[in-house]
Amino acid sequence: MRTQVAIVGAGPAGLLLGALLHKSGIDAVIIEQRSPSYVLSRIRAGVLEQVTMDLLDQAGVSARAHAEGLPHDGFELLFKGQRHRIDMHALTGGSRVMVYGQTEVTQDLMDARAAAGLTTVYEAANVQVHDFDGATPRVKYEKDGQTHTLTCDFIAGCDGFHGVCRASVPEAAIRTYERVYPFGWLGLLADVKPVTHELIYAHTDRGFALCSMRGNTRSRYYLQVPLTDKVENWSDDAFWAELRNRLDSEARDNLTTGPSLEKSIAPLRSFVAEPMRFGRLFLAGDAAHIVPPTGAKGLNLAASDVGYLWNAFADFYNDKSRAGIDTYSDRCLRRVWRAERFSWWFTSLMHHFPETGAFGQKMQEAELDYLVNSEAASRSLAENYVGLPMNFGA
Amino acid sequence: MRTQVAIVGAGPAGLLLGALLHKSGIDAVIIEQRSPSYVLSRIRAGVLEQVTMDLLDQAGVSARAHAEGLPHDGFELLFKGQRHRIDMHALTGGSRVMVYGQTEVTQDLMDARAAAGLTTVYEAANVQVHDFDGATPRVKYEKDGQTHTLTCDFIAGCDGFHGVCRASVPEAAIRTYERVYPFGWLGLLADVKPVTHELIYAHTDRGFALCSMRGNTRSRYYLQVPLTDKVENWSDDAFWAELRNRLDSEARDNLTTGPSLEKSIAPLRSFVAEPMRFGRLFLAGDAAHIVPPTGAKGLNLAASDVGYLWNAFADFYNDKSRAGIDTYSDRCLRRVWRAERFSWWFTSLMHHFPETGAFGQKMQEAELDYLVNSEAASRSLAENYVGLPMNFGA
Repeated sequence: MRTQVAIVGAGPAGLLLGALLHKSGIDAVIIEQRSPSYVLSRIRAGVLEQVTMDLLDQAGVSARAHAEGLPHDGFELLFKGQRHRIDMHALTGGSRVMVYGQTEVTQDLMDARAAAGLTTVYEAANVQVHDFDGATPRVKYEKDGQTHTLTCDFIAGCDGFHGVCRASVPEAAIRTYERVYPFGWLGLLADVKPVTHELIYAHTDRGFALCSMRGNTRSRYYLQVPLTDKVENWSDDAFWAELRNRLDSEARDNLTTGPSLEKSIAPLRSFVAEPMRFGRLFLAGDAAHIVPPTGAKGLNLAASDVGYLWNAFADFYNDKSRAGIDTYSDRCLRRVWRAERFSWWFTSLMHHFPETGAFGQKMQEAELDYLVNSEAASRSLAENYVGLPMNFGA
Repeated sequence: MRTQVAIVGAGPAGLLLGALLHKSGIDAVIIEQRSPSYVLSRIRAGVLEQVTMDLLDQAGVSARAHAEGLPHDGFELLFKGQRHRIDMHALTGGSRVMVYGQTEVTQDLMDARAAAGLTTVYEAANVQVHDFDGATPRVKYEKDGQTHTLTCDFIAGCDGFHGVCRASVPEAAIRTYERVYPFGWLGLLADVKPVTHELIYAHTDRGFALCSMRGNTRSRYYLQVPLTDKVENWSDDAFWAELRNRLDSEARDNLTTGPSLEKSIAPLRSFVAEPMRFGRLFLAGDAAHIVPPTGAKGLNLAASDVGYLWNAFADFYNDKSRAGIDTYSDRCLRRVWRAERFSWWFTSLMHHFPETGAFGQKMQEAELDYLVNSEAASRSLAENYVGLPMNFGA
């Protein structure tokens, strides 16, 4: 089999790249280890930047997101028992975010891909990427007992943190940066009305909590928990009781509880691999970088990587220019490091870090107090939260 | 001897309080352990906020500061070999800072106090503060072989971090917060032309450097050094060579070197004691809090404490109101914690911290890159650098 771009991974990054390339008349095949239902079962973030919505628009897959997504103009910071609203829309001169689950984005992209009759190979075993240093890279995989080879011009590694693409790069060619945080997020999904119509980020002596949502009747709540904690230790009742402990009295009174649809503990990690291109292999999304979920930058960063990569391939095939390819890694990484900084900062500000002691706790409280009282500081938070423009500071 | 306000410590905080109280017709005596020349020999920061200049104006001791001080409208951040100017004046809508050495401020305050014939007891031994929980506090000290008792309405503890006032508070009545940084500042003072007309804060792989000044012909330079380092290890030549290593090529070319007038290593510490009032004893300045010198908030914070304290005493004596006294600690601490946050943040951003690893270094570079490219972030830095208003967020 031959294609122009072989995409490894059918998560939102790979699927979005496939959709955008199709719009530009560039041929792509997606190879995915897992089944469609497995891919869809992964619960992830649900806050889309305007940059991401624009790319979904350009890919022609945004109709349901516009219809069912919830545009948010602000969010709330809760600390010392009081909520303070950050009016993103006013602070950024009109930007907002769209609350729409990653699972829904993936579903929409899958549906569009199927409707267009484009090739996605699911449940491909033993996927390998070869010869990306040369002119004719190949992706090998096994399916239905047979070995297949996909020959291509370029490989897009959209196969996540544990994927094969980054792992196939010689160690000497790549440098990685990492910070693992000393806690996790216990998440609970339930079909209950959200406690308020906007997100609440809560800083408390008991740890961080986040009130999020996937719609007007589906809520997603998170609690900071020790890394040693196990999801089996948390009954639904225990979760709701602890969440109440971390909310202000009004939110406590308005909280609707119900049985969990899903409950899991996720670790928090900052990770970046540099560079993001190796010959004809391009990493995009979680394959190249991970952010902690505070601020919801993971999917948005994957989308902007894909945006740069789409432009690079369109330049190459339609304009015979290598400029986008040669600058891909640098353009991505500048935006990646900015989002890494924001996610690291917001995580460091909001969570309980026993190791920084009483002084560290006071620094968090002073920063939160300053943040909500300074227009400049609020604006800085807001502009990062809605997402810096793709050409920011260029 | 009897006075209305007994001030312990004749550094800039105590002297400024004395001058302001005198303007309001309130009687004060200052008790100081050291000699005038010892007090003047302590080289400290030299960047005055507008808030501090306003208080010097109100005390009637600002003539020389206005005549000889250098108003600065901006400063420069140097990282990755490039300088970026922060235009404080434009970013804050017209604020600036005054570069004028703390030693000069102290000298001006001493001269004004002597001219007004006000009492300062220097070289007072074994200073003790008593009965500040009751209606008649007393300050005891020894001078010329005799024990003296100063009876007063209030005691102002302006006697610095190692002073007797905070140490006299029962342990159960006070809570302290501290962070000690794993490095020091090696400072060098020389009668040479400053390398540029504004300050340069330099972030380098070799550590932090600061190019500061005390006038057009006197420069003050600093290098981040390990805490284990000794000033004897640093010849003037070694200092200048290492400073060159931490500058950009243009600054390197423009650097004028010369023999040091003073050279010393200072540790960096964040420290806050809460509360700042204990009955009729009030702590002000370093007696209550220490900031690391990055951002030059130490003297400015002492000045604003003194401003609140002056208002409190004026309310009490002139308007028979206890409101200023009762709110003194809270008003000070709100501003103190904001300046502590800024100083901690600016220190954390600019210095080399081996323990945060390569990821920490990347976070600093990403933050600096964001800072100079975002108007909101630049403004936040600028508004803190010029000093938040005394009623900020009130």
